[in-house]
Amino acid sequence: MMKILIIGGNGTIGRKVSAHFKQKHDVLIGGRQSGDVIVDMTDAQSIQAMFDSVGAVDAVVSIAGEAKWAPFETLSEDDFYIGLKSKLMGQVNLVRIGREYVNAAGSFTLTTGILADHPVRFTTSAAMVNGAIHSFVKAAALELKDGMRINVVSSGLVEDAVDKYEEYFPGHNPIPMQKVINGYIKSVEGSGTGDIIRMYDNR
Amino acid sequence: MMKILIIGGNGTIGRKVSAHFKQKHDVLIGGRQSGDVIVDMTDAQSIQAMFDSVGAVDAVVSIAGEAKWAPFETLSEDDFYIGLKSKLMGQVNLVRIGREYVNAAGSFTLTTGILADHPVRFTTSAAMVNGAIHSFVKAAALELKDGMRINVVSSGLVEDAVDKYEEYFPGHNPIPMQKVINGYIKSVEGSGTGDIIRMYDNR
Repeated sequence: MMKILIIGGNGTIGRKVSAHFKQKHDVLIGGRQSGDVIVDMTDAQSIQAMFDSVGAVDAVVSIAGEAKWAPFETLSEDDFYIGLKSKLMGQVNLVRIGREYVNAAGSFTLTTGILADHPVRFTTSAAMVNGAIHSFVKAAALELKDGMRINVVSSGLVEDAVDKYEEYFPGHNPIPMQKVINGYIKSVEGSGTGDIIRMYDNR
Repeated sequence: MMKILIIGGNGTIGRKVSAHFKQKHDVLIGGRQSGDVIVDMTDAQSIQAMFDSVGAVDAVVSIAGEAKWAPFETLSEDDFYIGLKSKLMGQVNLVRIGREYVNAAGSFTLTTGILADHPVRFTTSAAMVNGAIHSFVKAAALELKDGMRINVVSSGLVEDAVDKYEEYFPGHNPIPMQKVINGYIKSVEGSGTGDIIRMYDNR
């Protein structure tokens, strides 16, 4: 049994991932508004306080962070920084700070999405953030110590979000939730590191 | 003959790329300390002032921007922001602001590097920034109008930088400068858009 901290564990994907891991593991949910521990991913001090509160864990799973979706010609510099501060540096800080709290042979699992590889319109900011995390994960895997691992799950449009997002993803095949959950299982319970676990069904 | 603005045109790669394009085109060099126009890539207002000064161009080539190389465990949040503000948002702002100044069917050519795909140690920040730009370029290509194109050249360790960087890139085959120059030629004089022009010789 592992002690697993899941940030964003009450979200669309997070609640299914959490439900799965709770069957076998000790799961703590971190959330912006609700959860076992409250955390603001845009604030490194809040992330530090979360780890101080939670203590040592075997796995950290992040399914959190946002970026602004809008036409490129309307995005201001500040709009780009929403994604940089939240989904990008939030997840980077989670690893940067959290590596002091993850047990030997423990793992980090971050979350991005298909936009990194196959963007759609209005996602210059979101795609950019996702691509940044993919390369970060590959690079960080080279330096983590004590058998600590890091991977990222990048899914296509998930089934449970089709109603909300399908107009942005013309012709994209929805990804079954079980496949998405399997991405997180592969990262947390598998042995890979530096892996971009792609759950796509388009090409 | 095109009017080409090359930011970083006096750097290691930039001076060879500029020398090539000067044979056939009207080239303006933008640089932090020297050039036909001075520009601070970390400052959107400076980029705006540069375009106001230079006016309409047919191609913008960026071979500029920096990121901090250091062991992951020593990188602070502010250290990561060096690369985000310079090499990442500098190049994003160049496109965001510059699209008003590039002629129809004109192009942007950005620069990253092999770390996006094949990082080495101490490059969590640099790899992240490069990966971000790759995805940004793919996404921006979907939205640029009037036949405007955008690509990015991603080279391995270039011949002219081997002395300075080879200790970071064990076993990497240096990329001949002419191949790197060809990446920029392909982007500026070719017809592709959304392309990551990889000049690697490792895998």
